Amino acid sequence: MKIAILGVGLIGGSVGLAARERVEGAEIVGFGRSAQRLRLARRHGAIDRAAESLQDALRGAEVCICAAPVGALAEQISAALSAAGPDCAVTDVGSVKRGLVGAFVDERFVGGHPIAGAETGGVEHAQADLFEGATWYLTPSPTSSGLLYERLHRLIIALGAHPAAIDADVHDRMLASISHLPHVLANVLVAQAAGRGELPRIGPSFRDATRVAGANTAVWADIYLANRTAIADEIDAAVSRLQAIAGELRAGDGEAVRAWNDAAAEHRRRLLEGELSSDSVHELRLTVPNRPGVVAQVALALGRAGVNIVDLALAPAADMRSGAMIVWVAGDEPAEGAVALIEELGFAVARG
Amino acid sequence: MKIAILGVGLIGGSVGLAARERVEGAEIVGFGRSAQRLRLARRHGAIDRAAESLQDALRGAEVCICAAPVGALAEQISAALSAAGPDCAVTDVGSVKRGLVGAFVDERFVGGHPIAGAETGGVEHAQADLFEGATWYLTPSPTSSGLLYERLHRLIIALGAHPAAIDADVHDRMLASISHLPHVLANVLVAQAAGRGELPRIGPSFRDATRVAGANTAVWADIYLANRTAIADEIDAAVSRLQAIAGELRAGDGEAVRAWNDAAAEHRRRLLEGELSSDSVHELRLTVPNRPGVVAQVALALGRAGVNIVDLALAPAADMRSGAMIVWVAGDEPAEGAVALIEELGFAVARG
Repeated sequence: MKIAILGVGLIGGSVGLAARERVEGAEIVGFGRSAQRLRLARRHGAIDRAAESLQDALRGAEVCICAAPVGALAEQISAALSAAGPDCAVTDVGSVKRGLVGAFVDERFVGGHPIAGAETGGVEHAQADLFEGATWYLTPSPTSSGLLYERLHRLIIALGAHPAAIDADVHDRMLASISHLPHVLANVLVAQAAGRGELPRIGPSFRDATRVAGANTAVWADIYLANRTAIADEIDAAVSRLQAIAGELRAGDGEAVRAWNDAAAEHRRRLLEGELSSDSVHELRLTVPNRPGVVAQVALALGRAGVNIVDLALAPAADMRSGAMIVWVAGDEPAEGAVALIEELGFAVARG
Repeated sequence: MKIAILGVGLIGGSVGLAARERVEGAEIVGFGRSAQRLRLARRHGAIDRAAESLQDALRGAEVCICAAPVGALAEQISAALSAAGPDCAVTDVGSVKRGLVGAFVDERFVGGHPIAGAETGGVEHAQADLFEGATWYLTPSPTSSGLLYERLHRLIIALGAHPAAIDADVHDRMLASISHLPHVLANVLVAQAAGRGELPRIGPSFRDATRVAGANTAVWADIYLANRTAIADEIDAAVSRLQAIAGELRAGDGEAVRAWNDAAAEHRRRLLEGELSSDSVHELRLTVPNRPGVVAQVALALGRAGVNIVDLALAPAADMRSGAMIVWVAGDEPAEGAVALIEELGFAVARG
C-alpha cells in the first residue's frame, strides 16, 4: 500500500515511522515545501522516499495523510484531492474539523485528528509509537465512501491508535473543552505568575499545569482562530464557574467549597476511568445497503453513544447492492447498546 | 540534635527520612494522634521513635516541625509552643502563612512552607529526597530569634532544599497565583469536560493540566478557606484575562491572539529560567547588632529582591552586643545587589 504523507513533521513523520514498522508492504512517500526537511525525514527513517512533486507523491497512492499545520490544511487538502486518484482515501490530522469537513464534499475525504503530540515539533522528534493507545478521531460525512473509511480505520489501528468516529461539530466543541481551553488557561496562569512584582519560584504542580503555555504560535494561533467560537464559549462557561467559586470563597462558605472540590475529584475519576477502560471485545455482523454514507452513519451513531469500535471490516456482496459490515466493540454493555442502536438504524445485526 | 515532628504524614515523614539520612547525630521523634500511623512511620524509617506525649516529643528538642494539615495547624503550633523549651525553634509546613504568623508572636516561631509534595499522601509515600532542590519558604517576623532562624535555615539546606525568606502576605498572594489558582482551574477544567453530554477521551496535555483536580478535600478545603481573599483576587484577575481573550477570539483578531500567545511563551520562559538558575556562590560577611529581628530583616530584604541565600551562618561576638552574619548568595549580579541592599539597611558588609 502506497501512503503519501504531505508535510513530514512530528505527526506526519510519526505516521511514516509507525507505518513502515507496522504495515506490511507499506511504501511511504513524503512531500513538503522544504527539500531539507524531506532529506531529514528520509534520514530519520520516516519515509521511504521524497516525492518530486505533489503529483509524484499521489500517483497510485491508496491513502494520503495531509499533515500541514491547521492554518495551511485547507489549501493542502484541496491540492491533494485534485491530484489524488479516485481510489485514494484523503485524510488530515488537524485539531479543528468543522471548517474542513464543510469545505470538502468529496467521497474520498474523511477528516481526522489523532490525540497525540509532543512538546517539541519536527520530524527529528517523530516516534513510531506516538499513537500507541491514542484516540484518533475520524469525522466522516454522509458523502464519505465506506470502503475508503474502512481503509483509514484499519490503517489507524495498525498505527497503534483507537479510531473513533465523531461529528465534526461535536469534535470541535470537545477539543475546545479538553485541549484548547487548557491551553488558554495555561497562558493565563503564566501571565499572571510572571506579572507579579517578584518572579515566583514555581513547583512541580505549576510546571505540569503550564507545560503547554505559549505553545508554538505559528501553529496555535491558527487553531485558536479556526475554533474561535467554540473556544470563546468554553471560556465563558469557565468564567461563570470561576465567578461562582470566587463568590463562595469570599463568603467563606466551607460547605460549598468542600462540595465543589469533591465534585472535581469525582469528575476527574470519571474522565480517567473512561480513558482507561479496556474490556472484552464483541463482534457484531451487520447487513447494510452498499451505498455511500452507511459506514459513516453506523460509525457516528456508535461514536456518539461512546461505543469504542476496536476494529471494523467491510465485505461487499457479489451483487454489490448489499454488504456485510463487521464491527468489533469493546465492553459487554456497550456491545448491547450497539446492537440496539444498529437495529434502530434499520440494519440487521448478529452477535459473532 | 533532637527534632520533633508533629504529624508524620507525607511531608513530616519525608522530613524525618531526610534528616535521619543527612543530618549527623539527628534524633527524630514523632508524635501524632494515631498510634497506628506512628508505628507505620517507625517501620518506614521516618522516625527513630514515637513519643508518648507532646511533652515527651518536645523534651530537649532543638527543632519542632508542625506538619498537621492547614486546618489543624494553629492548634498544633499553639500546643507546641506551650510545650517547647526556650531554645527550641518551632516551624510548620503549611501552605498558607499570614494567619499563623499573625497569631504567634513568639521569638521561637518561624513559619515555613516547602514547595514539595506528591500526588499521594501518607507516610508510606514519604521520601528522603522529596525536598531535593525545592524552594522552602520561611516567614520570619520581626520578633523571630536570629539564632533559631539560622538553625532552621541550615536544617532545611541539610534536607536538600533552598530556604528563602518571604513576607507572609507576599507568600500567600504568590501561592494563590502559583498553586491555589492552578488547583481552582484544574477543578474547572474537569467539571467542564465531564459535564459534557458524552464523556470525552482525554489526552496527555489534559491529564497534565488536571493532575491536581479534586485534590484531597480534607486538606484543600482548609487551604482554599485559609487563603480565600488572595485566591478570590487571583480568580478575578484570571477572569479579566479570560474575558479579554474571549473578546479577541470572537472578533477574529489574529494579531492580538498571536501577541497574547507569544507573551505566554515569554512568561513561561522567564518562570522556568528563574527556577533553573544555578550560579557561582559569593560569601558576604556582615557585622550586625545582636538583637531579635536582624536576621529576619536581612533575609527578608534579600528574599524580596529575589536573591537566593544558599547558606547562612551567625557568630555572636564575645560581648554579645554585635555579631557576625555570613550569607552565601548565588549569582554575580545578585551578590552585587545584596551588598547594596545590606548597606542600605545600615550594616557593614565585606565580600568573603
